[in-house]
Formats: sequence, structure tokens, C-alpha cells
Amino acid sequence: MSEVRVHNFSISLDGFGTGEGQALDAPFGHAGERLHEWFVGTRFFHAMDDLPGGTLGADNAFAEEHNPGIGAEIMGAGKFGPPGWQDDPDWKGWWGPNPPYHTPVFVLTHRPRPSIEMEGGTTFHFLDTTPAEALAQARTAADGADVRIGGGPTVVRNYLAEGLIDYAHIAVVPILLGRGVRLWDNLESLNHTYNIESVSTPTGITHLTFTKNQ
Amino acid sequence: MSEVRVHNFSISLDGFGTGEGQALDAPFGHAGERLHEWFVGTRFFHAMDDLPGGTLGADNAFAEEHNPGIGAEIMGAGKFGPPGWQDDPDWKGWWGPNPPYHTPVFVLTHRPRPSIEMEGGTTFHFLDTTPAEALAQARTAADGADVRIGGGPTVVRNYLAEGLIDYAHIAVVPILLGRGVRLWDNLESLNHTYNIESVSTPTGITHLTFTKNQ
Ligand SMILES: NC(=O)c1ccc[n+]([C@@H]2O[C@H](COP(=O)([O-])OP(=O)(O)OC[C@H]3O[C@@H](n4cnc5c(N)ncnc54)[C@H](OP(=O)(O)O)[C@@H]3O)[C@@H](O)[C@H]2O)c1
Ligand SMILES: NC(=O)c1ccc[n+]([C@@H]2O[C@H](COP(=O)([O-])OP(=O)(O)OC[C@H]3O[C@@H](n4cnc5c(N)ncnc54)[C@H](OP(=O)(O)O)[C@@H]3O)[C@@H](O)[C@H]2O)c1
Repeated sequence: MSEVRVHNFSISLDGFGTGEGQALDAPFGHAGERLHEWFVGTRFFHAMDDLPGGTLGADNAFAEEHNPGIGAEIMGAGKFGPPGWQDDPDWKGWWGPNPPYHTPVFVLTHRPRPSIEMEGGTTFHFLDTTPAEALAQARTAADGADVRIGGGPTVVRNYLAEGLIDYAHIAVVPILLGRGVRLWDNLESLNHTYNIESVSTPTGITHLTFTKNQ
Repeated sequence: MSEVRVHNFSISLDGFGTGEGQALDAPFGHAGERLHEWFVGTRFFHAMDDLPGGTLGADNAFAEEHNPGIGAEIMGAGKFGPPGWQDDPDWKGWWGPNPPYHTPVFVLTHRPRPSIEMEGGTTFHFLDTTPAEALAQARTAADGADVRIGGGPTVVRNYLAEGLIDYAHIAVVPILLGRGVRLWDNLESLNHTYNIESVSTPTGITHLTFTKNQ
């Protein structure tokens, strides 16, 4: 069966996947860009924006796992837009006319709207359903390929808690945020079901990988 | 001036420095021995108990920083004994007649008792005072040497929050505890005052070091 994967999900040392005070001009709240500096510097990220340059090396090697084999993404309402986007009928996500997904994307929200077809193969679908049912739909749309759980922290945590994730790559950034949305909350159960690897790189990032035991 | 240091302080990936349900037969609650397996396996730990063997290598290298230059320790009531030890006039700590400190040890407690002199140079003193005042007393007792903040998580967190720690070595163990006492709580401020290094070792431990900016 196809796998369910998390990639390049960044948290602070104290476990926050986003800061406090998310808004249109502050997609990560008071965290600013600090959770993703390591990622936007990579060659993988540059290429996603059709930019030259960016670093090769250990951080980029992890970053590059993001897309290969992925046929659909699931994300939360908090990743799709700032608080209140549901009141704006024209909101189409943060990513402009040609979002970097190029697959169907399923947005979990309690206020669904009709699907939006974007350029480059991305279609946003809006679902108000359980994580398992959303996954079933994404699997069908992915047509045998893998499904990425794209964030934010609430949605990744929910999928982890339900045991639905096969592989998760979490990048721990050496900052302390103190407040925001925690990834780690009541996830004691993971300890028994995953093999966990840790790799720290010279830039200070610790890459954790969780691989589900067979 | 002498430095204030934390060494070999172990936390889970989700940031807990001890589990839930601390008791006489469960010093770390439901965490059991899992937070310290890496540490008790080292040659440093074996030598502390006058045992032969134990591993050399990266984890042991970090472990060995524990004692050199230290002239006193400060610990919390929760490290000194299980809940309720204050009601037992004969309680002298977990460590037998010759505790592995060999220096004055200051126990922070709201129910202080007279000092206890043990074999091997360890004397337990009991203080009901502020972190800063306890540190002043420990510095005097250390006579120019450094002071170790020994734990548990509550006491380490309090000293970090007050900006009183010069160097902290935190060992992140690849387990998820889900519940217990968190080290990371409202420590956003650290981000601006410390240089943070991360080193993961082949055993899966990530050693974080916090070094105060000059
Ligand atoms: N650290 C990273 O690598 C990373 C990655 C991606 C995003 N982010 C950041 O994470 C933040 C968003 O994370 P978040 O945890 O606040 O929110 P989120 O996980 O993106 O979304 C949670 C929201 O999605 C909706 N939802 C979730 N499950 C649902 C279900 N089963 N049925 C219906 N609706 C459901 C609910 O919103 P409603 O009730 O409002 O519909 C819920 O509040 C943003 O700041 C984003 O920039 C970080
Ligand atoms: N992870 C590690 O490497 C590590 C290291 C050492 C210990 N531990 C574990 O950590 C656990 C204990 O940690 P904890 O966070 O529960 O407790 P703790 O930090 O050892 O002690 C906190 C307690 O100390 C007393 N206290 C603290 N500051 C005080 C002050 N300024 N004045 C007076 N009293 C003060 C209070 O107790 P009262 O009000 O009761 O007096 C307070 O509840 C144990 O399970 C221990 O085995 C773990």
C-alpha cells in the first residue's frame, strides 16, 4: 500500500511548529522565519521557486525527500491561510497562481468550499471529515502514490496520534519559541511504534526520522 | 567568577525530564530507566559506582564533563527523594552512605532540616530560599570552584529562567514520554542569550549544549 509521509516539518527545541499570533503578515506568528531558515536556504527550496543556487549538503539531502513518490497532500486550515481566510471567498492559499504542490491537495476545514483548480496541476479540495476518511480520499486521488501530511502542527499531531503515519521527518531547529502550537502533545504512544533516528548537521539542525515498525 | 553548570540532564524528545508518578520504587515515574540508559552505560557512570567497564565514545565524552571543576551542587526536593521524604526523619537521599557528590550539596525544599554529613565528603544542606540566594551560598561553599545545578527539571528550569546558568548540557533521548515534568516551559528568553550546539551520536542521543554569550 502507498505510504503516508511527513517531510521537512520544522519545530523549535521546545517543540513548537508555529509561533503565537499567526496573521496575514506573520504566517508563523512571532516565530517569523526562524523555523524555516535552514529549509529556504537549500537548493531544493530554491528549485521549487525556479531560483538558482541554494546549498547542497546534509540539510538539502533531507529536504530533497519531500516530493519523490508523492501523489497528494493533506493540510490543515491553519496552513492554508491566516485566521479568517474562510471569510474571504477569493483566498486561494499563500502560494500564488502556481502553488508548489502539483498534485491534489486536501484542506481540512470545518467550513469547506468548492474545489479550486490552480495552475501546474495543483487542485485544492476542502474536506470536513475525519483524518482517516480524508486519507482514504487522498489515497484515491494519489492513484497508488504516497500521501504527504503537510502540516501544520495540529494536523500532523492528529495523524501521528491515530497511527496513520508511516514515515515522518522532523527538523529540530536550535531556537526556543516558548509559545505557539506544540507538535508534541500526548504522543507517548509513538514510542512503541517507530524506529527513531537522529542526525545533527553542522548548521545546528537535528533531523529526526520516525519510521513505523513493520 | 566561578561558573554555574548543568550536566547530563536527560529529557525525552517531547521535553520531559521525569515521568508521571514518581515514587520510592519509581524514581522517574513511568519513564523508568529509559531517560538514563545512555548514561548508566558509560565508563564515567561505572567509575562513579566503582564498577569496571562501561563504554568510551561520544556519549561518555559528554558524561565526563560532569565533575571536573565542580565544588558544590544544588538540587531540588524532587531529586533528593520521593514525594513524602520530608515526613521521614531518616531519609538521607537515594545514594547510600557514600553519595557520588563528594562536595557540599544544597537541597531546595520548603521543609528544611539540619544538615547531614555523609561519607566521602558529601554534606547535604537544606535551604528554603530563592534560587539566587541558594547559589550565593553554594558559591561560597564551592570556594572558587563551579556550581552544578543537578536537577530535577523544575529546578533546572527555574535557574535557566533567571539567567543564572552559564553552561547546560542536555541529552535528548529518542523516546516520547507524553507526561511528566517538562524542562521547556516559558524559556523563550534563552534563545537570545545562549549559543546552542547539537551533536547526535550513533546511539540516538542528541547532546545539546547551551553556552551563555559573553
Ligand atoms: N513547522 C512547519 O514545518 C509547518 C508546516 C506547515 C505549516 N506550518 C504553520 O503551522 C501553522 C498552522 O498550524 P495549526 O496547527 O495552527 O493548524 P493546522 O494544523 O494547519 O490546521 C488545524 C485546523 O484545521 C482544521 N481541521 C483540522 N482537522 C480537521 C478535521 N478533521 N475536520 C475539519 N477541520 C479540520 C481546523 O480548522 P477550522 O476549525 O478553522 O476549520 C483546525 O483548527 C501556520 O502558522 C503554518 O504557517 C508549519
Ligand atoms: N532528567 C534528569 O537528568 C534528571 C536529573 C535529576 C533528577 N531527575 C528526576 O527529576 C524528578 C524531580 O524533578 P522535579 O521537577 O519533580 O523536582 P525538583 O526540581 O527536583 O524539585 C522541585 C521542588 O524543590 C523544592 N524547591 C524548588 N525550588 C525551591 C525554592 N526556591 N525554595 C524552596 N523549595 C524549592 C520544591 O519542593 P517542596 O515544596 O516539596 O519543598 C519543588 O517542588 C525526579 O523524578 C528525579 O528522579 C531527572
